[in-house]
Amino acid sequence: MTDAVVDDLMARQSAIRARLDAFLRLPSVSADPGYARGMEAARDFLLTWLLEIGVSDARLLDGGGQPAVYASWEGAPGRPTLLVYGHYDVQPPDPLAAWQTDPFEPVERDGRLYARGASDVKGSTTIAIEAVAAFLRVTGGCPVNVKFFIEGEEETGSPSLRELVRRHGDLLRADAMISADGGRASKTIPTINVGARGIAGLEVALRSAGKELHSGRYGGAVRNALHEMARLIASLHDTEGRIAVPGFLDVVPDLSPEQRADTAAFPLDEAAFLGEVGAVAFGEHGYTLRERLTLRPAIDVNGMWGGYTGAGSKTVIPDEAFAKITMRLVPGQDPERAVALVADHLTQVCPPGLALRITPKSGNSPASGLTAGHPLLRAGSAVLEQLMGRAPVPVRLGATVPVTALFKELLGIDTLMFGFNLPDEDVHAPNEFFHLDSIPLGLRGWAMLLAELGRMTEADFAPFRRNGKEEARA
Amino acid sequence: MTDAVVDDLMARQSAIRARLDAFLRLPSVSADPGYARGMEAARDFLLTWLLEIGVSDARLLDGGGQPAVYASWEGAPGRPTLLVYGHYDVQPPDPLAAWQTDPFEPVERDGRLYARGASDVKGSTTIAIEAVAAFLRVTGGCPVNVKFFIEGEEETGSPSLRELVRRHGDLLRADAMISADGGRASKTIPTINVGARGIAGLEVALRSAGKELHSGRYGGAVRNALHEMARLIASLHDTEGRIAVPGFLDVVPDLSPEQRADTAAFPLDEAAFLGEVGAVAFGEHGYTLRERLTLRPAIDVNGMWGGYTGAGSKTVIPDEAFAKITMRLVPGQDPERAVALVADHLTQVCPPGLALRITPKSGNSPASGLTAGHPLLRAGSAVLEQLMGRAPVPVRLGATVPVTALFKELLGIDTLMFGFNLPDEDVHAPNEFFHLDSIPLGLRGWAMLLAELGRMTEADFAPFRRNGKEEARA
Repeated sequence: MTDAVVDDLMARQSAIRARLDAFLRLPSVSADPGYARGMEAARDFLLTWLLEIGVSDARLLDGGGQPAVYASWEGAPGRPTLLVYGHYDVQPPDPLAAWQTDPFEPVERDGRLYARGASDVKGSTTIAIEAVAAFLRVTGGCPVNVKFFIEGEEETGSPSLRELVRRHGDLLRADAMISADGGRASKTIPTINVGARGIAGLEVALRSAGKELHSGRYGGAVRNALHEMARLIASLHDTEGRIAVPGFLDVVPDLSPEQRADTAAFPLDEAAFLGEVGAVAFGEHGYTLRERLTLRPAIDVNGMWGGYTGAGSKTVIPDEAFAKITMRLVPGQDPERAVALVADHLTQVCPPGLALRITPKSGNSPASGLTAGHPLLRAGSAVLEQLMGRAPVPVRLGATVPVTALFKELLGIDTLMFGFNLPDEDVHAPNEFFHLDSIPLGLRGWAMLLAELGRMTEADFAPFRRNGKEEARA
Repeated sequence: MTDAVVDDLMARQSAIRARLDAFLRLPSVSADPGYARGMEAARDFLLTWLLEIGVSDARLLDGGGQPAVYASWEGAPGRPTLLVYGHYDVQPPDPLAAWQTDPFEPVERDGRLYARGASDVKGSTTIAIEAVAAFLRVTGGCPVNVKFFIEGEEETGSPSLRELVRRHGDLLRADAMISADGGRASKTIPTINVGARGIAGLEVALRSAGKELHSGRYGGAVRNALHEMARLIASLHDTEGRIAVPGFLDVVPDLSPEQRADTAAFPLDEAAFLGEVGAVAFGEHGYTLRERLTLRPAIDVNGMWGGYTGAGSKTVIPDEAFAKITMRLVPGQDPERAVALVADHLTQVCPPGLALRITPKSGNSPASGLTAGHPLLRAGSAVLEQLMGRAPVPVRLGATVPVTALFKELLGIDTLMFGFNLPDEDVHAPNEFFHLDSIPLGLRGWAMLLAELGRMTEADFAPFRRNGKEEARA
């Protein structure tokens, strides 16, 4: 039966590709209100598509921000119910000038499909939908019960996701979640994601005077907002790259021998990894690069600005400076506490007389992990071994899928990340792309995974479900 | 005779004001090529005006950049020849949103005339032209020979002024210069400028990777251009605000008792001075605020930027960071050497593997000073004492008038700064204004100064003229 479904998927490649292209043409940038129409168009597109494949109950779920797209098919009584997660929003395309082709006009070059969102994560979302669609079309049903949940705020840290899940918890009840986000770690070595770093962020605004000052009239006599912002930012790390925010690393235990072994099992050519993007290795001593990326926290300034940035020169002492900061968190770190520690530190370092305004970013999320022995792990591992010819290595993500931690907290369910994107695809950067051969591989993988999960029952999942907050309330 | 001229100027206040308003409406921003038409309009305006008042030979002088406006009246044989300096270019109006009214539509409020350039320096330039105009109109001649030199690159550091003076040195030959730029230091205490700090600048571009990186995929493992730029900028000063660039202060001698006495003679309410603009005192220990502002050098970052600065958040590790830096220099400091010291220091501090690109700003200028006993000082002091009822205090400017040092170097002549703008007028900032009562005072002062200088001869100036480079060549 699965073979027939896979055959159908392979035969329909060009139709699937046309659908993905159409999806990529919709500029669904959630961070920038200027793209509101693109967001709306992407929602409409998904609703139409989902109804067309034969699921029922397609609708928008509102949590006060960008609505999520929801649809369900529940024709497999006794079989597990899986939330299938994806997101239709994409990162802003800035800096636009650095794109070789229009970010919202998919272009194929050298076996790659270039477009904003191709890798993150419209490509893998399309794969997930098409796999379910093929089962419904070819067999008249799906091996498991499926609830699509395709959110529109992933790239802005899912600020209203908590409220959305609170409002629609009954609808979202499931035995586990499969995520189209959270991709492969390597093209050649099969891996299975067992966890991801969390995220938290803040914006910093610093004011040193009531207005911009002439550097000839005040230079040498007053504080300069940019000098002070530079000092604040420089204080976040020591000169060897270790986070220098007091207390920040106290709750992070050193790595266990098992963690060391797991990361070592997935070899990484550090020079090639960095060389590919022209980056310079830097960070805490005593850890391999992969350990720093997945098992140690990070703080990064994502943007910083102030003063005159136009053509030519302007001899001013800027009165305001700004920075956007996000951090990646590991198990044991509470996002709110992490933000508070950074805020306290900056407040401590900021000289008297200056106005420091710190705004925590919404959509924080702790690190997440897949419970050992979970049926999702068993099913995912079996499928990947069959698909790739060798057992997958357990890996952790350095990036964040906030939804994972949140669904664990609110609905008590674990998530298997089963996206097919790859790490070299310039996610969040200009010229993002998706390796085109990931599409047939991903379609096959998703079909096999749905079939494998269909051999399980709700009861297999019960021991691994915690009572989520919604259930506790119900 | 001077009385009749002053009477005429006082009677023609509204016509003079209308002329100034028209001048202020022309958006002559030299730093931004987008304002090229405003620059051209300002030049045409000045040429028409100067021909109208009865000078001859009005023309543009080209040095390869923004042309200067030149015009001469040489009908006073044996009397000194004075270059009258002003500039028609203004600072960019950014940030536009902070202006209460259109920067290029002069508006009178509370005895102030608000517009970009009102204080710096179209107001005082208008005063200078109108004073000469009144002599020509009322007496048929001027007490001294006058050569107007109104440049268009003062706000960008006069990048082509050197070439311009080199090309047109014969035309610019004079006994001394009176500058409409370089204003009053106080509304109540008469002061006479005896020097100004110099200026030098550089732009810094830092690249840490080949492209913008995803903070989840690389965070904790690589250099972040903004972190490194912050470190570079923070390294320019020690924590007490003293310049920390090795060698930078070595050539700056400590203040002499005379310098200490001079600055002390012009009292400054430090708290009021800073409170007025909401600034926070900071800088080298062991110096009064006025000493720091006029007799000690300063380094200021005028703009700094990198990464994502738009709405919302973008979890990137920026690959590029930029900063614009200018410094104010005191006697003894060579601008090129100062830039080289800062560049060397930044190169030293920059970690290996990063690409640091340093571009010296053109239009550097050393500090300048008026030779003691100079006829300009005698004439200026006498006029100010008569005008204000007490002898002026000798003061130095913290700001820079590059033209002063350059004319000393190339033409061997000294400059008297005789502008009437005041330090509270938000020069280079939003809502720049000119105190309207400075107009009649300035007109009277310039008429008296021209008359006073007319009582001198070329011979009085000869001992104070150095052979300029142009003369040496001729």
